[in-house]
Amino acid sequence: MRVILFIASVMFMVSCSQQEKINQIKVNNIQELQEAIKQSIPGDQLIMANGVWKDVQIDFYGKGTKEKPIVLIAEEKGKVTIEGASNLKIGGEYLEVNGLYFKNGFTPSNTIIQFKINDDTIANHCKVTQCVIEEFTQRDRDVSDHWVELWGRHNEFSHNYIAGKSNFGPTIRVYLAGNEHINNYHQIINNYFGPRPRKGGPHGETIQIGDSGTSMAPSYTNVSNNLFDRCNGEVEIISSKSNFNEFTHNVFFESEGSLVLRHGNYCKIDGNLFIGNEASNNIGGIRVINTGHWITNNYFYKIKGEAFRSALAVMNGIPKSPLNRYNQVTDVVVAYNSFIDCLSPWHFSVGSNVSQTDVLPPSEIRSARPKRVVVANNLIYNQAGDAYPIVNYDKVDGIKFENNITNTENKSEIKTKGLRTESVELNPLSDYLYAPISKITPVYQGFDFELIDKDLFGTVRTAENNSVGAIVGPVKESEMSFDRSKFGTNWFQAEGSKNEVKIFTASSSESLISILKEANSGDTILLDQAVYKMEMPLVIDKVISILSNHNEKSELIFSSERTAFEMHPGGNLTLKNLVLTGDKTQNTFMTLDKFMFKAYNLALENVEIKKFKSVLEVSKGSFADEISFVQTVIEDCERGLMLNKETNDGGDYNVEFLTVQNCKFNLIQETLLDYYRGGYDESTIGGNLIFQGNTVTHSGKSAKDQILIKNRGIVNVDLSHNTFENNPVKLIAVLWGEKGQVPVDNAISNSGKIEVVQNLKLKLMY
Amino acid sequence: MRVILFIASVMFMVSCSQQEKINQIKVNNIQELQEAIKQSIPGDQLIMANGVWKDVQIDFYGKGTKEKPIVLIAEEKGKVTIEGASNLKIGGEYLEVNGLYFKNGFTPSNTIIQFKINDDTIANHCKVTQCVIEEFTQRDRDVSDHWVELWGRHNEFSHNYIAGKSNFGPTIRVYLAGNEHINNYHQIINNYFGPRPRKGGPHGETIQIGDSGTSMAPSYTNVSNNLFDRCNGEVEIISSKSNFNEFTHNVFFESEGSLVLRHGNYCKIDGNLFIGNEASNNIGGIRVINTGHWITNNYFYKIKGEAFRSALAVMNGIPKSPLNRYNQVTDVVVAYNSFIDCLSPWHFSVGSNVSQTDVLPPSEIRSARPKRVVVANNLIYNQAGDAYPIVNYDKVDGIKFENNITNTENKSEIKTKGLRTESVELNPLSDYLYAPISKITPVYQGFDFELIDKDLFGTVRTAENNSVGAIVGPVKESEMSFDRSKFGTNWFQAEGSKNEVKIFTASSSESLISILKEANSGDTILLDQAVYKMEMPLVIDKVISILSNHNEKSELIFSSERTAFEMHPGGNLTLKNLVLTGDKTQNTFMTLDKFMFKAYNLALENVEIKKFKSVLEVSKGSFADEISFVQTVIEDCERGLMLNKETNDGGDYNVEFLTVQNCKFNLIQETLLDYYRGGYDESTIGGNLIFQGNTVTHSGKSAKDQILIKNRGIVNVDLSHNTFENNPVKLIAVLWGEKGQVPVDNAISNSGKIEVVQNLKLKLMY
Repeated sequence: MRVILFIASVMFMVSCSQQEKINQIKVNNIQELQEAIKQSIPGDQLIMANGVWKDVQIDFYGKGTKEKPIVLIAEEKGKVTIEGASNLKIGGEYLEVNGLYFKNGFTPSNTIIQFKINDDTIANHCKVTQCVIEEFTQRDRDVSDHWVELWGRHNEFSHNYIAGKSNFGPTIRVYLAGNEHINNYHQIINNYFGPRPRKGGPHGETIQIGDSGTSMAPSYTNVSNNLFDRCNGEVEIISSKSNFNEFTHNVFFESEGSLVLRHGNYCKIDGNLFIGNEASNNIGGIRVINTGHWITNNYFYKIKGEAFRSALAVMNGIPKSPLNRYNQVTDVVVAYNSFIDCLSPWHFSVGSNVSQTDVLPPSEIRSARPKRVVVANNLIYNQAGDAYPIVNYDKVDGIKFENNITNTENKSEIKTKGLRTESVELNPLSDYLYAPISKITPVYQGFDFELIDKDLFGTVRTAENNSVGAIVGPVKESEMSFDRSKFGTNWFQAEGSKNEVKIFTASSSESLISILKEANSGDTILLDQAVYKMEMPLVIDKVISILSNHNEKSELIFSSERTAFEMHPGGNLTLKNLVLTGDKTQNTFMTLDKFMFKAYNLALENVEIKKFKSVLEVSKGSFADEISFVQTVIEDCERGLMLNKETNDGGDYNVEFLTVQNCKFNLIQETLLDYYRGGYDESTIGGNLIFQGNTVTHSGKSAKDQILIKNRGIVNVDLSHNTFENNPVKLIAVLWGEKGQVPVDNAISNSGKIEVVQNLKLKLMY
Repeated sequence: MRVILFIASVMFMVSCSQQEKINQIKVNNIQELQEAIKQSIPGDQLIMANGVWKDVQIDFYGKGTKEKPIVLIAEEKGKVTIEGASNLKIGGEYLEVNGLYFKNGFTPSNTIIQFKINDDTIANHCKVTQCVIEEFTQRDRDVSDHWVELWGRHNEFSHNYIAGKSNFGPTIRVYLAGNEHINNYHQIINNYFGPRPRKGGPHGETIQIGDSGTSMAPSYTNVSNNLFDRCNGEVEIISSKSNFNEFTHNVFFESEGSLVLRHGNYCKIDGNLFIGNEASNNIGGIRVINTGHWITNNYFYKIKGEAFRSALAVMNGIPKSPLNRYNQVTDVVVAYNSFIDCLSPWHFSVGSNVSQTDVLPPSEIRSARPKRVVVANNLIYNQAGDAYPIVNYDKVDGIKFENNITNTENKSEIKTKGLRTESVELNPLSDYLYAPISKITPVYQGFDFELIDKDLFGTVRTAENNSVGAIVGPVKESEMSFDRSKFGTNWFQAEGSKNEVKIFTASSSESLISILKEANSGDTILLDQAVYKMEMPLVIDKVISILSNHNEKSELIFSSERTAFEMHPGGNLTLKNLVLTGDKTQNTFMTLDKFMFKAYNLALENVEIKKFKSVLEVSKGSFADEISFVQTVIEDCERGLMLNKETNDGGDYNVEFLTVQNCKFNLIQETLLDYYRGGYDESTIGGNLIFQGNTVTHSGKSAKDQILIKNRGIVNVDLSHNTFENNPVKLIAVLWGEKGQVPVDNAISNSGKIEVVQNLKLKLMY
């Protein structure tokens, strides 16, 4: 078949300021684009016309030259949007993609932007720049993809904005499988990585470079000058799994995770800012595994994470570790870093689990302590004083401490001449940056330390001008705080303009329904009537608050099918001062059965819930960021909160934070709460349950396994200050001793007991 | 204590041909030498006076410069010998050792030459050249050492001759433990590695670079232009255990072993000669494990080894292998090599052992097949025709064959368009070198193949001038055969002048004893009498043959204690046409209890042995290279050949080749033969038993375990064409099915049976 395409492009020659002539070809649709790509020669500029490009799968191939790349560019940045089921593959040499805006859709393949078309057409010396990918996420959290896959060599991903991936899979993935992809020297630079929501479980990295199977390959990927703004996907923001990668001059801002040297060796982490601001216990710094890394000139501010999430976590390895597990840490240098107002920033032998020899196979026991590690010329400063700068989970016999300074007396178990207490005065330069008023000298000169020749801001370290810590000083005005506008594109505004928040009053069931439909995200609905009869479920697909507008609680009486409230992706519901009554045929809250592509939130305070089947039923793929029930009464229901549908046993779970506080449960027939995580994967720590100050009576009569509260596999559990009376169960709950779970101050009468199992047998994930 | 050393050195300034002045300091003893070292400055030449330097431990330290090294040099090469308990340690910069001759002793430490003095004084840019280490081996085979240890960076070991290590431990070991030792760029070049005897079991490498624990380190050690002449120590001549090493332009001459890429990745093996000459089944080529190696331009001649020892052995890996086991082979390129007159040169998935799942833990099962491996532009030529060029132990699905040529029809299970049959004509250029008469084109151009820009002899490969195989041609006269004199020192003659072989006649016991004492190695003693009464054991510490000089067999009647013959290190005894009779109080042959630092040999033909306790008893540390009993009668003894004392279970054993052929055994009370190897280590294959054509009667009455022939753990066993009659045992022998052992054509009556056990449970060695 022979197809003659009419190219409706305006083709003209532009004489540009350089002597080179650029051939501009404007294309209006995918057919024109593909034909233009086919015809393209070095120097061509293919201009995608303004408008919505829907359901387009672009294969951009060709051979440009260094001087004359072939460029695919938006007519006007921000006005060319790629939507629907769309993606872009790039293969060839010296190709550039500039200014595309992916939104309002998701990829029909495994990637949005892939630096190869197929194994025979791989990208080399190609570049994607000034692009935006915004919430271009799969409809189902379970469906895995990568937004950007780097293949080949010498490719660049720069000045892009990328945010909102909530499904499985690292945002950016660098591949090394095959000689075509090693020694790649890819540049991932100057990007703005906007918020990546919590995912719950693994596979939520922002960048992953290689994998265990290719971890012996030399990679040389460079990740520099990027901003990671609240990249919360999982415990690893960046997972480096290959050799000779560099991570320099990035800002990690309130991101719940760490830069993790997971596999591979000889990486460089230099001059990065880790700003925790004590915003969460989940914000970490750098986690170290393997050999030969140099960690220098980094600045850590208010990191309060522990263990895997501490500012500096140096792990224990498995002796002769399998390829995909934990190699011993050896030959690592940690020098000239500053830890300011962090809590116990140094954790050594993290992951030591010798005590678990009974439940884990020998190939899981991390007993190999770090060795030949040099920790020198670092500054630990804590304004309030931090008497325990070092936490150790094993003997510390392979670390050489030299000339580290702290401003507080060191009361840690590990005391060493290599960590001295000195009074240090700091000068506040911005809301996170504190520089020493005078140089801290002398400095220790270790093997190859002359290679650490600059400080955090590029000031040259010389014999005459040097200092302990990341900053030699003085600091230029322009370096005192980081400028968000320097990251990402030059055209896209990351934070959308907020609607003005409105308050509505609903005086009838009908008006409640219609207001809920019309309201904008962030609005509040007040109820002024005593009773509302609801025949249909209330759909929650935005941020909404519903509360009584009078002293008594308004009552919502549901005769709806299935559920009272239906939580949609992104739904964020706050209920206060209400009574919810069912007719025992429906649940109080349910998620959609599928397409829960974004997390939802649920917060109840001073609510009464009566006569429902389950209080909460969720679908397998759903994920709640936070669910909290406070001062709420739940009575005469079949089941309580059922967050137990994620049963892949891949380390995933249905809610990140579940808080039940000062509530009353009475006459719940079956399980009160079931919060499940299957699959042993210590490195992705999660599931957080607080069950505190509650009173539970006459519940659990028909509970499966005769357990009232099920929390199997959840890592962080607080079960304290509760009262359990007359609950006909065998067990109130089973706690996991190895994770530090202990029942505290619970009053129990005629209600079974709380059991603590030291080591839980879980299915290994790898 | 203050010691004033008088330096009896002649100190004078020499104006040399260059403008630099060299300060020569002659030293006569260790005190003077150490004092001179202490005083030395750049440009100094410390001259060791001619003579024997006995029991000296030299610490050679200092800081020379590139232009002015500090040199430690022999007054006259060959006339300065280091003997006794001696060694040399080097630490500092730009130090050179020149012309020393280590002989007649052994090191009291772990090394003879060590490129560091201690962890604070490491050698960098240092050089050892024109030196000889000859049989400077430990008195006990069990005592481990390394003759040369390279530490630090940029050191050179060049133009040396080194031979005769028979104890445990690699001859040369490169260390990478610590950042001071990585990226070392050591040069091991132009050396002559003379014979290293078979060791039996592991730890007999000639060169080992790194170890599994440091196998992630970049090494960049260069092993070039060396001759490996009969380096038979073990299955690995060179064990590369780190990254980025290069092995180029070496000659492997009749060396029983392979160049093995054991751990580490991205090594280069280019332009080497592997000359097997069909001299032994144990002579191999290259064995490949791990990732990213390039194997190019190598020439293999008459290699007939199989599996681990094939010309090209590509192994199966263990999925997610532990650090010290077998990683999968990936991303390897095998291109432009020539395989001339080899037998089945290509073996893929070597080591596949899926069938052994019952006896081995999962972490030992090599089921991961090679993947992303390119085999291209290779030439297989076999004059006699080799219909089975490829042997596969698993599916072959990860190898890309492209444009390989063979001159024989390929009847292997693996057939591929990538291996074509073409008639190829070769031109014999020397006794091993055959070059194609005309270029074989076209050639396949794979990824990065333009980097293979030269052939075996340095001829540039261009688009116009290229050929399949290692040789593009034409070959210069000087390249047609390798010149031994180009390797090693410029002064040492590797092969000592042979004595003229003499033949003596011993006409009495006394003369037999005195001739044996006086004879030179290689001599023969004839016996002309009917009977010799021997009251003392005959000591065998050289190569000696004893035989009857008349038609009847001379009889040696022993009343000696312990043994009739006492085998000393290096003893090599041939007995022919004799009767040996004991009085049942002694053994026929015994080794020394210790200090068996060299292997011994024993060959009997047409001998009768009667009335001894054991025929052969050995000590634990002893090792025989070959023991053969042919057409020999053994009668009325308690035990036969007891080679079962090496019970460390470290993969070692007491004899490499044991051959018993066409013999008669009658009335042996206990075990006929016990040949033991403990410890599972498949990679060091050995123990070779031939028991063929023998007749065994009335034996084994008191045999332990009721087994007549014990061969536990021995890998290669041939039990065929024997007759067993009236032996009151349960089992004649237990064979190891997995190693291909099957009994062939044995006539058995009233004698128990031969059992075949598929999988033997052995202690893992690692």
